[in-house]
Amino acid sequence: MTIGIGLLGLGTVGAGVAETLNPPHARHPMVAASALRRVAVRDLSRPRPVTLAPALLSTDPAEVVNDPTVDIVVEVMGGLEPARTLILAAIAAGKSVVTANKAVIARHGEEIADAAARQGVYVLIEAAVGGGIPIIEPLKQSLGGNRIQRVSGIINGTTNYILSRMTDEGAAYAAVLAEAQTLGYAEADPAADVEGDDAADKIAILAGLAFGGSVERALIPTAGISDLQARDVSYASQLGYRVKLLAVAQHLGTAADGSECLDVRVHPTMVPTDHPLAVVNGVNNAILVEGDPVGRVMFYGPGAGAGPTASAMVADILNIAGIRQMGGTGGGLDPLLAASRWRRCRLVESSRTSHRNYVRLQTSDQAGVIGRIGSCFGLEEVSIQSIVQLEASGGQAEIVVITHEVEEARFQAALAAIQALSEVQSVAACLRTL
Amino acid sequence: MTIGIGLLGLGTVGAGVAETLNPPHARHPMVAASALRRVAVRDLSRPRPVTLAPALLSTDPAEVVNDPTVDIVVEVMGGLEPARTLILAAIAAGKSVVTANKAVIARHGEEIADAAARQGVYVLIEAAVGGGIPIIEPLKQSLGGNRIQRVSGIINGTTNYILSRMTDEGAAYAAVLAEAQTLGYAEADPAADVEGDDAADKIAILAGLAFGGSVERALIPTAGISDLQARDVSYASQLGYRVKLLAVAQHLGTAADGSECLDVRVHPTMVPTDHPLAVVNGVNNAILVEGDPVGRVMFYGPGAGAGPTASAMVADILNIAGIRQMGGTGGGLDPLLAASRWRRCRLVESSRTSHRNYVRLQTSDQAGVIGRIGSCFGLEEVSIQSIVQLEASGGQAEIVVITHEVEEARFQAALAAIQALSEVQSVAACLRTL
Repeated sequence: MTIGIGLLGLGTVGAGVAETLNPPHARHPMVAASALRRVAVRDLSRPRPVTLAPALLSTDPAEVVNDPTVDIVVEVMGGLEPARTLILAAIAAGKSVVTANKAVIARHGEEIADAAARQGVYVLIEAAVGGGIPIIEPLKQSLGGNRIQRVSGIINGTTNYILSRMTDEGAAYAAVLAEAQTLGYAEADPAADVEGDDAADKIAILAGLAFGGSVERALIPTAGISDLQARDVSYASQLGYRVKLLAVAQHLGTAADGSECLDVRVHPTMVPTDHPLAVVNGVNNAILVEGDPVGRVMFYGPGAGAGPTASAMVADILNIAGIRQMGGTGGGLDPLLAASRWRRCRLVESSRTSHRNYVRLQTSDQAGVIGRIGSCFGLEEVSIQSIVQLEASGGQAEIVVITHEVEEARFQAALAAIQALSEVQSVAACLRTL
Repeated sequence: MTIGIGLLGLGTVGAGVAETLNPPHARHPMVAASALRRVAVRDLSRPRPVTLAPALLSTDPAEVVNDPTVDIVVEVMGGLEPARTLILAAIAAGKSVVTANKAVIARHGEEIADAAARQGVYVLIEAAVGGGIPIIEPLKQSLGGNRIQRVSGIINGTTNYILSRMTDEGAAYAAVLAEAQTLGYAEADPAADVEGDDAADKIAILAGLAFGGSVERALIPTAGISDLQARDVSYASQLGYRVKLLAVAQHLGTAADGSECLDVRVHPTMVPTDHPLAVVNGVNNAILVEGDPVGRVMFYGPGAGAGPTASAMVADILNIAGIRQMGGTGGGLDPLLAASRWRRCRLVESSRTSHRNYVRLQTSDQAGVIGRIGSCFGLEEVSIQSIVQLEASGGQAEIVVITHEVEEARFQAALAAIQALSEVQSVAACLRTL
């Protein structure tokens, strides 16, 4: 039984998929049973890193999703539209879909899952998070018997590359970003990566799988690294931390109405150097899953790139091919997530979540400043782990505070009181801390 | 549809499985659809960490494998026999099997897979390697499109605990082992762990999955940590390495007759401190998989214990339940490994494999010793990275050599020549180096 594959897009990743499906020595017998049947590209004349029979190519994506010889549509065009519409069209035509499109899945996952379940086809998304790292299927299957408490990770390679270099070299954000762009590790328009939106898409997907229901993508508190100062990266190192852009999804409890209360967020975070995520450097990704009864497991590897992404997409293709070969029917984004079984999930208001915090204050260099700052924290019952004056010159001082875990509302109230002190010029930086 | 579960054994792991199948809030809908139907124990009167209806218990394992209400037999008794016979009896009775028994699978995997394929049932073994770490299913599925080049890992928690403490405290092997036994991290008879046999069972299983064929378990070169000197652990640290008990399975090429040539082995290894495996400490396990096109991915987590092992076994149960629910048929240890498709694999003779080496020599403290040792290596074309005299007192000296990668036969020839030198009293230690 040959499995017909249709490709939407033939950029770096699409070419990687095409190549992996046709390797000199296929490891998996089902790779040999797959055949590329139709490929939609934007521009027929553009040179490609892979050689395909010209008759396979078309500029009309409808030809791919409607081709009767195509069993699985592989979407690698990216962006919200027309990707979403084409995915839905492929499903409507009775085809399973493999996609790396985290933006579409994070925003329209429920709609797509419902459509797939109705049609009895599969939508698999291993490549949407963590590139080549197996995380989606392990979360659904190998960890399927666990109640997941938290999923946290470094899931954007561009920002991790930038942060690794800022840490190693003490370099400024803008300088490292410019170099990353030259080296191809950052896009010409880096906003989706450096502002944390890409990581927020991915943590929305992981939260949905881990907790069995969808979260409202637009409500995820998201902070990127574009405002991060080299000075705070360096202070973090001195204090025994690494600054990482962490995406976190945590289960806080089940509400009286049965809905799952979650804290899902993306922000630069100080990670203790002996934490497994602290040693994840460069463009690598890692996802830490904490659950009962498994404890803590971590998945590590290349978070992007043609090869890793193709590895994940081909695995999804083989997965669907294997199910078909077994004569299996059913479908949906995942049996676990068949829409009728989705749990109601809701994000807890940020002010009600609790965190440890690092704060850097610019103050005048006067006696008693530390005491007055300490009092402001004390009045709000914010317990302090350390408060240190790190630099003082020209009548100016810099004070760094690390708090114990504290409810965000109290912390913000204390911070407002501190900002009102006449000796305090500014809250120069504020980072969450593990 | 309820899935009937039969348990062979109700020790720590068995009790963990029983508990996970009946949790207060099951995450996975299919957990609720599983029911424990029969449990074989050795001694009915022994107290158990889990409360079960007494009518479920039996001292006759045949009652479990033959119970018509049991769909899946979960084997957690351990040991070669009667476990192997009972697994085969369960398969013959048309039941799928979930087992953590690496010793049986490493030695009788092919026989069991053949039997399962003939009967159209499944034998899943996620818990056999890496405890709760998802590695078996990701290797089969999520990495199924890759040609695997190498699988290497820390896959025995006991030895990793001992090595971590030897490294941190400069302590001697015997002292740490005694403490590990008191703390329950090492068995009263620790041989299977400390001599590397447990790790060899596991790497045999991983090699089979990674390269698509079985390797002869008895032929795997295996060295444990019982002869390891605190002194070498300490020198390794000084030189920028950590000593880890690594299990490695590497693809060296395909022979003219079509068989895959593998280098599979277990031995204490010096791992550079910046290598991802170097930071895996305590009872944790980690498995690094290198493949094309994925690159390098790592799986990390608790390698043993009731909770992690139950997590893996329940995942396998859900996996089989899911396949049955989809109406799937087929079976075998894995469709990928259905016996007719197994590749011929063979271990390359050790003398023909290549490695970097660390050697510690005890010599007399005389001028020219280093030169003569260097000449012995040079005559066999063994290229040296460093040669250092580390200590000298009372006419005695200690010389440490690290070689570049060299064929084992040449290295051993050089070592024989060195041992014949009148100034060399002994080759005190010899460790492979990454």
